[in-house]
This record gives sequence, C-alpha cells and structure tokens, in this order.
Amino acid sequence: PDAEFFPDIGKIAFRSDAGPAETLVFKHYNANEVVMGKTMEEWLRFSVCFWHTFRGTGADPFGFPTLIRPWDDGTNSIENAKRRLRAAFEFFSKLGIKYWTFHDRDIAPERETLEETNKDLDEISDLALELQKATGVKLLWATANLFANPRYMNGAASNPDAHIFAYAGAQVKKCLEVAKKLGAENFVFWGGREGYHTLLNTDILAEQNHLANFFKMAAAYKKKIGFTGTLLIEPKPKEPAKHQYDYDAMTVIAFLKHYGLEKEYKLNIEPNHTTLAGHGYEHDIVMASAFGMLGSIDSNTGSPDLGWDTDQFPMDIKNTTFVMKTVIEQGGIQPGGLNFDCKVRRESTDLKDMYIAHIGAMDTFARGLKNASKLIQDGVLKNLVKERYNSYTTGIGKKIEDGTATFEELEQYILEKGNPHAVSGQQEHCESILNFYI
Amino acid sequence: PDAEFFPDIGKIAFRSDAGPAETLVFKHYNANEVVMGKTMEEWLRFSVCFWHTFRGTGADPFGFPTLIRPWDDGTNSIENAKRRLRAAFEFFSKLGIKYWTFHDRDIAPERETLEETNKDLDEISDLALELQKATGVKLLWATANLFANPRYMNGAASNPDAHIFAYAGAQVKKCLEVAKKLGAENFVFWGGREGYHTLLNTDILAEQNHLANFFKMAAAYKKKIGFTGTLLIEPKPKEPAKHQYDYDAMTVIAFLKHYGLEKEYKLNIEPNHTTLAGHGYEHDIVMASAFGMLGSIDSNTGSPDLGWDTDQFPMDIKNTTFVMKTVIEQGGIQPGGLNFDCKVRRESTDLKDMYIAHIGAMDTFARGLKNASKLIQDGVLKNLVKERYNSYTTGIGKKIEDGTATFEELEQYILEKGNPHAVSGQQEHCESILNFYI
Amino acid sequence: PDAEFFPDIGKIAFRSDAGPAETLVFKHYNANEVVMGKTMEEWLRFSVCFWHTFRGTGADPFGFPTLIRPWDDGTNSIENAKRRLRAAFEFFSKLGIKYWTFHDRDIAPERETLEETNKDLDEISDLALELQKATGVKLLWATANLFANPRYMNGAASNPDAHIFAYAGAQVKKCLEVAKKLGAENFVFWGGREGYHTLLNTDILAEQNHLANFFKMAAAYKKKIGFTGTLLIEPKPKEPAKHQYDYDAMTVIAFLKHYGLEKEYKLNIEPNHTTLAGHGYEHDIVMASAFGMLGSIDSNTGSPDLGWDTDQFPMDIKNTTFVMKTVIEQGGIQPGGLNFDCKVRRESTDLKDMYIAHIGAMDTFARGLKNASKLIQDGVLKNLVKERYNSYTTGIGKKIEDGTATFEELEQYILEKGNPHAVSGQQEHCESILNFYI
Amino acid sequence: PDAEFFPDIGKIAFRSDAGPAETLVFKHYNANEVVMGKTMEEWLRFSVCFWHTFRGTGADPFGFPTLIRPWDDGTNSIENAKRRLRAAFEFFSKLGIKYWTFHDRDIAPERETLEETNKDLDEISDLALELQKATGVKLLWATANLFANPRYMNGAASNPDAHIFAYAGAQVKKCLEVAKKLGAENFVFWGGREGYHTLLNTDILAEQNHLANFFKMAAAYKKKIGFTGTLLIEPKPKEPAKHQYDYDAMTVIAFLKHYGLEKEYKLNIEPNHTTLAGHGYEHDIVMASAFGMLGSIDSNTGSPDLGWDTDQFPMDIKNTTFVMKTVIEQGGIQPGGLNFDCKVRRESTDLKDMYIAHIGAMDTFARGLKNASKLIQDGVLKNLVKERYNSYTTGIGKKIEDGTATFEELEQYILEKGNPHAVSGQQEHCESILNFYI
Repeated sequence: PDAEFFPDIGKIAFRSDAGPAETLVFKHYNANEVVMGKTMEEWLRFSVCFWHTFRGTGADPFGFPTLIRPWDDGTNSIENAKRRLRAAFEFFSKLGIKYWTFHDRDIAPERETLEETNKDLDEISDLALELQKATGVKLLWATANLFANPRYMNGAASNPDAHIFAYAGAQVKKCLEVAKKLGAENFVFWGGREGYHTLLNTDILAEQNHLANFFKMAAAYKKKIGFTGTLLIEPKPKEPAKHQYDYDAMTVIAFLKHYGLEKEYKLNIEPNHTTLAGHGYEHDIVMASAFGMLGSIDSNTGSPDLGWDTDQFPMDIKNTTFVMKTVIEQGGIQPGGLNFDCKVRRESTDLKDMYIAHIGAMDTFARGLKNASKLIQDGVLKNLVKERYNSYTTGIGKKIEDGTATFEELEQYILEKGNPHAVSGQQEHCESILNFYI
Repeated sequence: PDAEFFPDIGKIAFRSDAGPAETLVFKHYNANEVVMGKTMEEWLRFSVCFWHTFRGTGADPFGFPTLIRPWDDGTNSIENAKRRLRAAFEFFSKLGIKYWTFHDRDIAPERETLEETNKDLDEISDLALELQKATGVKLLWATANLFANPRYMNGAASNPDAHIFAYAGAQVKKCLEVAKKLGAENFVFWGGREGYHTLLNTDILAEQNHLANFFKMAAAYKKKIGFTGTLLIEPKPKEPAKHQYDYDAMTVIAFLKHYGLEKEYKLNIEPNHTTLAGHGYEHDIVMASAFGMLGSIDSNTGSPDLGWDTDQFPMDIKNTTFVMKTVIEQGGIQPGGLNFDCKVRRESTDLKDMYIAHIGAMDTFARGLKNASKLIQDGVLKNLVKERYNSYTTGIGKKIEDGTATFEELEQYILEKGNPHAVSGQQEHCESILNFYI
Repeated sequence: PDAEFFPDIGKIAFRSDAGPAETLVFKHYNANEVVMGKTMEEWLRFSVCFWHTFRGTGADPFGFPTLIRPWDDGTNSIENAKRRLRAAFEFFSKLGIKYWTFHDRDIAPERETLEETNKDLDEISDLALELQKATGVKLLWATANLFANPRYMNGAASNPDAHIFAYAGAQVKKCLEVAKKLGAENFVFWGGREGYHTLLNTDILAEQNHLANFFKMAAAYKKKIGFTGTLLIEPKPKEPAKHQYDYDAMTVIAFLKHYGLEKEYKLNIEPNHTTLAGHGYEHDIVMASAFGMLGSIDSNTGSPDLGWDTDQFPMDIKNTTFVMKTVIEQGGIQPGGLNFDCKVRRESTDLKDMYIAHIGAMDTFARGLKNASKLIQDGVLKNLVKERYNSYTTGIGKKIEDGTATFEELEQYILEKGNPHAVSGQQEHCESILNFYI
Repeated sequence: PDAEFFPDIGKIAFRSDAGPAETLVFKHYNANEVVMGKTMEEWLRFSVCFWHTFRGTGADPFGFPTLIRPWDDGTNSIENAKRRLRAAFEFFSKLGIKYWTFHDRDIAPERETLEETNKDLDEISDLALELQKATGVKLLWATANLFANPRYMNGAASNPDAHIFAYAGAQVKKCLEVAKKLGAENFVFWGGREGYHTLLNTDILAEQNHLANFFKMAAAYKKKIGFTGTLLIEPKPKEPAKHQYDYDAMTVIAFLKHYGLEKEYKLNIEPNHTTLAGHGYEHDIVMASAFGMLGSIDSNTGSPDLGWDTDQFPMDIKNTTFVMKTVIEQGGIQPGGLNFDCKVRRESTDLKDMYIAHIGAMDTFARGLKNASKLIQDGVLKNLVKERYNSYTTGIGKKIEDGTATFEELEQYILEKGNPHAVSGQQEHCESILNFYI
C-alpha cells in the first residue's frame, strides 16, 4: 500500500472542547452539523489547492525555498509528480475536505514538446482520477497555468505574438479535456499576465479583443466536448502585471458584457485581490452576487497594510461572517466552493503547519457560517434594510422602481409634497447589531 | 460699466522668453499656434470650473475658510451671486479661456422651496447667458449638485427614500433646461454620494437599479427638450462615500452596458479619481478611449502619496504628454474639453494665485500637446507597437484576430510549428524614446 | 435645574442578556466588574471628546452640516457655548464615562483679540470646573487647536512667520493654565498643520528646529506653573498637510531624541493615524509601548480601504483585543486613557446615535479587555514567545543579549557549531490560538 | 585575453544629437562636462549593482526565469562565478560607470560550511580586485546578503535564535574584511528580514535590542580592522516582512539615536522604499539630508500605483531634478553615490536592454543635474524660501530661533502686536518656477 506521508497525523477530529493550543482539531467545523437546512459541508464546499499546498516552496523575491517536503525529491520526474499527488490526497482525506483544485503545470511536469507534456498530463490525471475515486474527493475546478513559463511573460491570450496565443489555446484545450475527464465542476481562468506593464508598448484594445476571442473559443470548445462545468474568470487588479485587464468584479463584468460573453462566464472572487483593488474585503463578493455573477470564491486574505498578494489563510471571523452572509443569501455557492487559495507563511516550515493553517481557516469559516445564519434567521438587519427602502413599494417610489416615472412627474411630486428630509443611516447601530453575532 | 474685480491683472500675454519667476504670462500656451492642423485652443478646449475657483473657500476638514475674495460678501443674496458671476467672466476673459463649467447650486443660491430656488437659477442663468454673449465664453458643461445638501447625505438617485430621489430628478430636470438655454455642449453626472458607507444597511442592487432608472429618465428628458449636449458620467472610486458605484471607467462601462445605457452616456475622466482607484494617471483616459467612451477630461492631478482627492492643478509634463497623446490619437476631445476641476491650495490666498495656477497648468498642457504631437508625427513608438502585433495580420494570427480560429486549429498549429519564443518587451527602450520628447 | 438635553435617554444600563437590536444598553461593559485585579473602568479609562461629539457638524468636503443639535443655536455666543457644555456633561453622566477631553477653541469661542478670547475661555472653564465637580467627570487631557484658524494654514510652531509662532505659544500658554485649573491628567499636542505641502517653498530643518523650541518652551512653562500632567505628542502621517512631521511613533521618537526632549514627552497613539502611515492597526501602540513611550490612546478606527482619516468608532473585537493586550502587558495606560476620538457618521443624525456609537465601542473594548485578559492569564502565547527566544538566555546568546559578544566570537562559534537551522514561525498556529479568545 | 561578453556593443558614446530611437548612446550624460565646478561624473557617482544586473533572472512570484545570459551556465561553480564577474566588468567599462556594488552571496557561491564559503569568496574577491585595478572601476559599497538563505527566514540579527544571529555576525565579519580588501568606500546594511510577520510570535523589543548590538559589533569590528568606509543603513518599510524595523529615514534615525549609534551610521536612501512608506519620492532624501544623515542613494523608482518594490530604472526627469537639488545643496553625495539598485523588466530579455536601461537612467539623472544646477544658480526659489522665513532673523523671531524665548514673552508679543495674518504659500507659483527648469 501507499506509504503514509503524514505518519504523525491522523484524521482530524471535531472536538468543541479543545483548548487554545490544540490547533490540530476542529473546534467549530463539524461537517455534518446542520445549519439552515444544509450541513456545514454542503454550505462551505471547501477545497484545497494543489499549487500552493503541494508545489509552494516558500521562495519569495528575496529568498530561496524554505518548505522542504520529504516526499518531494526536487526533480521533474513523473514519479515525483505522482508521489506529490498521493501525498495531496492523503492530506485531503485526513483533513476531511471533499474538493481539490489544480493548475495543469503544477500536477504534471512540462516537457520539451506539447505532445510530451500532454502525455505526462494524461498519466498524472489517470492517477488523479483513481485517487478521486478511492477517496471520494472531487475536483472543484481545474485551471491552466498561462503565466509561469517564460513564453507567457508578455501575456498568453493577450500576447503580442499570435504564436504564443496559439500555444495558450492548445494548452487550455487539453486542460478542458482533463477537467472533463476528472468531473470538474468548474473551470477557472486567472489572467495572470493578461494586462500591461507600460502603455508605451501596448495596444490595449487589440489585446482585449484577442482575449475576448480566446474566451469565445474556450466556451465553444467546452460545448463541443460536452464539459458541463461552469467557466469562471478570476479578477485581480495588478501583480504580476502593472495593470491586469481583469481588475475587479465590475471590470470583468464590463468586459464580458462588451464582448457578449456574460452568459458563458461567471466570476471566481478572491478577497485578497478585492482588497488590492482598493475595495473592502467582501465588496466584490457582494457586488458579483448582486449582478448574478458570483460563481465561486477563493477564500483567502491579505494584510490591509500590504500592497501585494500575500494569499494568507483567512482567520478573521468578521470577514468570514460577511462572506457566508452573502453565500446564504444567494442560496449557496454550488457548483462553486470555498477554495483555499492560500499558502502557509514561508516561515511555517513544519508539516503540521499545513494542517493547522487549513483547520484554523475552516474553523473561522464555520464560525462565520454560524454567525451569518443566526444573523439572517433573526432578521433584525434584514428588516431594518427592508424598512429603509420601503418608500419604493408604493406611489411615486413604485413608479421609480418600475422605471415608469419621468422627470416631469418627479418635479410635480416635489411641488406638491415639498422638500424631503434626510433619515439617519444608523451605521453604528448596524455595526453593533453585527457585533452581537460575532 | 462693471467694476474690475482684478484691477491689477490684464489680459494674460504669451511671451516665450519670460523668466522663471514670471508666472503671470504664458510661456508655452499660444492659443492660435497650429499643431497638427489645429490650433492649440482647438486641441486643448480648456474650461474653468466655477465651483472651485469662485466658490471654493479653502475650508478643509480641519480648518476654516482661508480664501477671502473682495467681491464676495459671504451672503446668500442674488446680488452676491451675480457679482461672483461677473468676476468669473472677467477671470475667464483675462485668462483667455473659452469655456466654463458650473454646478447649479454654486452659481445660484438654494431657497426654501424648489420654485424659489428655480426662480433664482433662472435669474442667474439669464445673467450667465448675457455674459457668455458678451465675452464669447461658452459652456462646456453644466451639472447638478446632488451631494452638498444634507438631504443627499445617503445618496440622490440611490437614496433609500423615493422622496429624495424625486427631488434629485426635479433638480436635474431644471438643470438640463438651463444647460440647454446656455448652449452647454455636454452635461455631467458625478455620483457624489451614489454609493455606500456600510453594506450592513444597504441594498446595493436596488440602489443601482434606481440609479439606472434615473439615468434613463435623464436621457429621455434630454431628448424631449431637444438638448443636444453629450451626457457624461464621471467615475470616482470613493470619497465622500466609502464606495462609489461609479468606481472607475470600466465599472461605469459595466453599469451602462448592464442597463442598456451605453449609447446614451459617455465618460468624463478625472485623473485624480483614476489614481485614487489604484490605476496609473492616464489609465482611465486610455481605457475609456479604447472602448469609444471618452467624452471629456477633468484635467487635474492628485499627489501619489495621498489617499484623498486633492484636485491639484496639473503641473507634470509627462502626465500631460500622455493625456494629449490619447486625445490626438482619438482625433480630439470635442465636444468635451479639458476642464480644470482643480483648486488653488488653501494656502494660496492671493488673488493672483488663481491666475498663476491656471496659467501654469495651461502651459503644462501646451507642452504636453507639443511633446505628444512630435512623438506621434515621428512615429517611432507607433511603428514599434505596430511591429510588435504584426503576427496578427496573417495566417493563424489573422484567424485569431477575426475570431474564426478554434482551439483545435491552435493545437494543430503548435504541433506543426513547435514552441514559441518570448520577445523582449523593450520597456526601458520605450521609456527612453518617450523621454526624448519631454 | 438644568434642562435635560436628552430627555428620552436615561442612565445607560448594563444588561448582558439584551438582544441584538437593543443597542442602548451595555452587554459587555460593566464598569465595576473586576478583571485581573482592576475594574473595567480602571483598565479602560474611556473619555468622550468634546470636539467631535459636541462640535462636529457632519460637514465634509462635499457637503453641508447634517448633525443638528437642539441645544445648539448655531451662534458664537457664550450662552450657546455653556449650553453645549452642559449637554456634554449630561451625556458623559448618562453614558457613565468618567473622563472627557477638549480643544480650547471648541469649548469657548474665539474673539477678536487674545485677551477677549482668553476671557471667554476663563468663563467657560469656570463652568467646566463646576460641572466636573458636580458630576465627578474628570479631564483626561486638554489640547490647543492650532490648526482651524486661517492664521495656522502654513503651520503653527512650524510656521514661516514668527508672529504666528508667537500666537501659537501664547495660545498654548493659556491652554496649559486652563488644563492645570481643571486638573487635566495629560496635555496633548497634535501637529495639525506642522508639516509641508510642497518641499519647494519649505525649509524643513528650520521648521523642525522651531517646532522643537516650541516643545521646549511648553515643557518649561509646564514646570513653571506646576502643571503635573503628562505632555503627549500625537503622531499623524498626513492630512491636512501632505506630510506631517509627526508621521508615526518612530518618527516622533526620532524627533524627541534628536532634540533631547524624550524625557519630557510621551505619545498619544491613534490607530486610524497608524493605519494611514501604512502600519497594522496596533503597530504604533505596540512600538511606542516597547520603547516606553506609550502615554495614551485615541481609540478609534479607519476603514482599511480608505486613504483619509475617518475617525470611526472602533467596532472590531480583534483590534480591541490587540490594544488591550498591550495595555495589560504594560500594566495599564494611566494617567492616559482610551479617548474616543471618533465621530458618528454624518448620516447618523439621530441624537441616540451619539449614545449607540459610544456604547458599541465601549462594549467592543470590554470584549477586547476580557479576551486579552484570558489570553494573558492562560499564558499560551507568552510561553510560546518566551521559548522562541530562549537561546538568548545562555551561552553565546547571553553574550549577544548583554552586548558583550564580538564578531570574532560569533565566527568562532559558527566554526565550532556549524550551520544553524531555521525553525517554524508557526504564524497560523498563533493566529488559531488568538481566535480561541475572540 | 578574456572573451568579449557583449561583442555587439562598444564603449557607449555621448552624442547630443542622437535621435529618439538611438537609445544606445548618451544624449545628456557627458562624464567630463563641468557643472557648478565639478564634472558630471563627480556629481553623479553612478554605480552598477551586481545582484540585479548580473544575478537577476527575471523570476517573479508567478513565473520562472526569463533572463538567459550566454555567459551563465546556471551552475554554482567558481568558474561560472568568475565568468559573471568578468562580464560585469566589461559591462561597467563599456557603460563608462566608475563604481560597482555587490552582495557577498551573489558574487561568490555559498558552500556547505562557512570556511568553504569564505574560501570561495576570497578567490572571487581576488579576481574582483584584479578587475578593479585593470579597469579603474571602484567599489562604492559591499553588503552581506542576510536574507536569501532559508536560515534567515525569521531574520538575521533579529532572529529569535542566537545561533542564526551568530552566523550573520560571522558572515558580516568576513564581508567587512572583503570590503576593506577591495577598498569599498561604504558598507551597507539592508535589513531584509529584520522585522516581523505577526506580532503574535514576536518580541519586538528583544529583536531591536539584538539588532542594535549587532550594529555595535559591526562598528567595533570596522574600527578594529581599519576599514574606513562609511557604514550605511538602508530603510525599507515592508516586503519581504510585513513590517521592517528600518521603516523609513526617521525610523532608522530614531533607532540609531535610541541606541547611541548615530555617530557610526548614515543612511542609504532608496526612493522606491520611500514611496512604499507612503512618502513623496524625494522625501527621505531631503529628510535624511536635513538631519545630516544622508550617506548614499539607491537611485531607482517604483510605480506609484503599485504596492511592492519594483526596482525600476529612474526615468522621470522631475524626480531626478529633485534628487540632484538636494545632492548639490549638501555639497555632493561622496563618499556615497547613485547606485542603480534597479533591474531591467523581466520582459526586457535582450542583452542590449541592460545597456539601454542604464543609459536611459544616466541621461535622466544628467538632465536632473543640469536642471537642478540652473535652478540653484538662478536662486529664484532659494530667495523665495529665504524671504519666507525672514521673520526669524530679528526680534522675537530671532529669540525663537535661538531657543531663548518663553511662552510669557510670546504672549506679551501678541498682546502688543495683535493678531498675525496668514501669507500665501504660493505653491502653484513655485511649481511653475520648477517647471521652467524641466
């Protein structure tokens, strides 16, 4: 049988009475506990991402790798790739997480030619399929790594060179096929280097036209092969590029609507990207949901005083309460999920830190779920909001709501009714209500 | 005859040989000098904005007014309003600027009732019309102040109270009528408080639906009265609200396309807002232009290390070169213009500082225009960019460009041609080329 | 007897079982509850600040006042000033807060001459003394408003004009006398406009020399009159100036040490200023405490996505836990306190919002205190940190700690012992431990 | 003889008439041209840094190396290290730059033990000495890389483990010896990981005490071996750590003064770090100079809309004018210099981009020097500033300046002279004057 990669760690237990230093048990996440008619597992749909947790090395722009894993011999061999995959599935199982996500180039090595690369990807994805069946872990989404190879340094689908665009298309084609084979419930596009570094050398309209054509080809090929997962675009404002075309939720929505793609794609929102774009933590999740475009969530966090993507594990209970409030209000995030697109700090070098980080984040989300469900079920905030907009349900307000009012009618209304008076927004009252649940 | 409000200052002259301390003459802006087939005046279409330059007091959140103007007695009287207007037109004329812009509530006092308020606006706009005729100064755009009065503290068209929405509609109705009367070439909407302070008390979808209905009513009323100016929306990411629905160019484009309004509105881009949204200075101008949505420009600047709207006069030659490059490339900014939505520093308390600030900015833009025209006429950068995307003009690139390629074809192309190679982006080369023109 | 200014509101009660919408009672702050040997009141030392809560109007750079108070007739009369003061003491008493703070120019009107101004300040401070005695509310600190009057637009003690410096000195002299009369426990300097807007017109060394001389005069005058309160400087990075000389804790410490003032002054840290300087919320509190310079705290918050000073009520439990952890670890904040330098949102226009905001913040701090006390008493984190630095208690580590080691010894140590190995920083483990207490 | 590593490039020429696309010649930097009594070379003291330009690979957090150099076989061999060094000196010579800088671990490979590592460093530094003599290129400064090796992940001199502190000391000891051997004019400490990632696991006072002791040992060892270069500390606010103890100029000054080290160390200011700390580009240069602590400059730039260290080549003429204004005003930067701590974009993959980037930056600085010298020689701004502070040269102002005034005297002055009046700060006038020279 397979070697155990984490011999010192068993299946992570739920023990609500565990003490502060016991960070290798769940104190709040209880997979089968029912909240508002669904289990925690059904609401939260956590996934582990392979690239951070099994390919992350701890290298940063100022330092060499720190995360040395005993199963990884550092080679590019197919055996090493398989060992990593088996370690991953052991990790998923012990953690009790039912989904995973991957980048094609991270699960399988890149070779000299596309054919050879694809062949290795076939072999690795065969093993992945086998491990999925054996463990019951499913694929939340797959994605193609269109940014790490030097060929993509000036973009993939927005590259000035059509040859590189073609390579990106060929790569995504294969990756969609693999996604189908593994039963992926979604497929994500993160526009790593789709953007510009300087406007001086860039034709931003041509680049976005090409990018749109790429997305059209992907949607067409998805249908052709009968892949039924949702296609998702993940916004990010900058880094590695100075400006990325998928800046934030509304920018992507503008792009999709401009090119007639809004029926084919939804959004995968990462809050660390949202805050880098200058918004509040939950803003893009709420905004995407309001516009019917929220498909999945990369549940991580940054540090508000840092200007780059730190991909930290989400540990703030207020933040997770906000996220789960939106998720509950839209009836769940399926077929999307909460993907832990986060990495242990490069200083967290123990194997157990991998578990502790995920467990801490899962507990934080479980608390967020419980808080949000109480908040919603009590209805205090909801009623306050409903009351606040009540004037739009009758009379002139109803006509405004319906879009049938005219400026002449509005003027007439004021001439008759006189000046309106402002009403308290009660922000601190609302904040105090929220704190009741946290 | 009218008193002279600026007795010590005459018509501002052009003198290219003026010395460094002579900041009350133009050294670069020569209205009738021809650049690429148009005069500087035709390219630059400067306007002075009334609110900053004639209603700005220098008050800030930490201090009382510092800018004491001899013609302003501090009262809310119609006489005072008229005196301010006459001072303004003397200022425009001496500066040699051919356009102005205003907020309704800044040129005319607000009274107890809408009728009284409108009556005073009629009286003031009669004077404005007279002064326009007498001086030849025209109205670049008008706008309605939907944010200063306490009634708008929770928004105007996005207010939770339909009564307040109605008031805003009545106010814009009147303002459109006045714009028509004065021959405004555009009409601007700046969503001062259309946004949220906390998501806890806000229904962001309802608010944006209402906002869209407001814009539809405005477009309908514009047509009804035969106003032919362009309707413009001005993005701003935040301040005064925590989040404003018109965050940046792409957010507004998303909004317009979502609600089917993209034919009715264009954008008025303010770079100080662009930088507050986390972009480079010229980003939204370039982006809006690429999407065919650039209608006008609020030519000001912020300070990159400050997180709020400082509305400074644009004094950076590289920035104005970038702006004018885009303006020239899209064939001009008309019927929009370069509106100086900027204010003298509250410490710049001399009357002559009003002139010095505008002159300095106009010279900076004149240098930007001359730099950009040389850059464009030499064609060095343009050719470099053209060459860079050349692969999209033939073969597989052409099919990608036309949207007729498929992923299967792309894969086949790679299998035949092999791996692509990355080509230098030459950023520093481009930056050095740019510096040649600055 | 005095009229009741808040007739609908009685003494705020503590009721731990109150529901979410009951935001006019304390659910956590129980003044006499003992935590680690002191009462909550002794640990927390809350103060209400007069300027925000009784002089704040809700005006912002884009809008007129929204906060209309029934006791304030809008005039500059001494009667109005007295009525405001009585309203304030009723507010303090009903809230159960034992300290207040004020700016001289906010409690008493400014008149034409310094003599007249001082005379009114005498009259108002007589009333303040009387109200303090009647209610038992004490003065945490006083401060001089050296920024609102136009004379200070280019700074007070750093003003290029010695006449203005002199005025500032005369004003602080009087304010120190009043502080003594009222038994102030501290005196604060916030360098509102001590900084620059542009380096082009500024001699930053001269300005800082003058500022230092100003602080020396204040310390000398304090001793001369026998005022025993602590002198405090409050850092802020920017706003209203582009750059303020008191940027952050370390900048002020550099300034104090450079000018030999570090024995005379401590710091009053405001976290909203800390975050504007690019640090984490609690950073300057921790840093100032580590250097023995933490004198008092302005307990407010900003919004991490906003670049200006919003002075919001602190409602985040994690933040208050961090603050109280440092306060407990340094044995308390006395004679400083937690001054609520925050204002209700300008949209929070109801009188009761004044109470709700303070109550919500007090409860948030009470939770922070309880969390921090448990965290400290359990000792889990403390032991982890102690263990982490253990190598400095013996051998070569001890010599490093004591400053007696040399590079030669260190080299010799490595030649003997070989290469060191890195140890996990366990960040996620620590974060999970923290969450146990929140 | 040595192979030529850049066979297609000769000695870079000065040709003021070169066209825009000719970016491989100097158009402004003319080494021997005299400006205010010194040659450009003497004022500018450019240095090339070895780590970026000869060890930078173009790898970033999202992508693999892009910069493939023909002389670098990718191995860790001593031969490869020597080849890189010879390529570097060919580069310095062809560029005409007279100084270089290096990190110990970048010029020579790290081996298993300190002895072996030091041995290779000896061998490489022998070659460096030989190449210095052969070319006349000198060493502006050396520094020890205390951040790339995993052992330093939790800091070097601030590491919780004394063993690691000891290793850092041994490493710096050797590096100081090599610096002496090579005649370095300075020695720099950049506190790469001296800071914290989370306060939860950190004793910030202990860490700073250790850091101070480290600096004391370095100063002592410098004296012991007779190294006469200046010791410099380079501030950086964050990245890689969340917070770095050397945040900005004033923070380092506070640290140095607190620990009594201000006589032993000066500052090496990098503007890209200054802007990341929230200041204007030139702020820390001006501030360090004012406090007599400016030792050297890392002449690079960031992009104001990006929140991480991009280390771009400085191409903005206004910025370099500001820098050179301060350098001229303090009489030069020697024994420091302008070190190009910048890297070609990872997309700038041609060998010639290495030259183009440096040439562009050198020309930008040459223009800055010429602009600043004219600005200073004309004296317009200087006189304006002098006049502005004139009131401190006589009467009460003089007493303030001298520190002999008291608050009582200031009060008496106001009682006699009455209220002061504010004077225009003339910011826009100053900005227009500046633009005259740009």
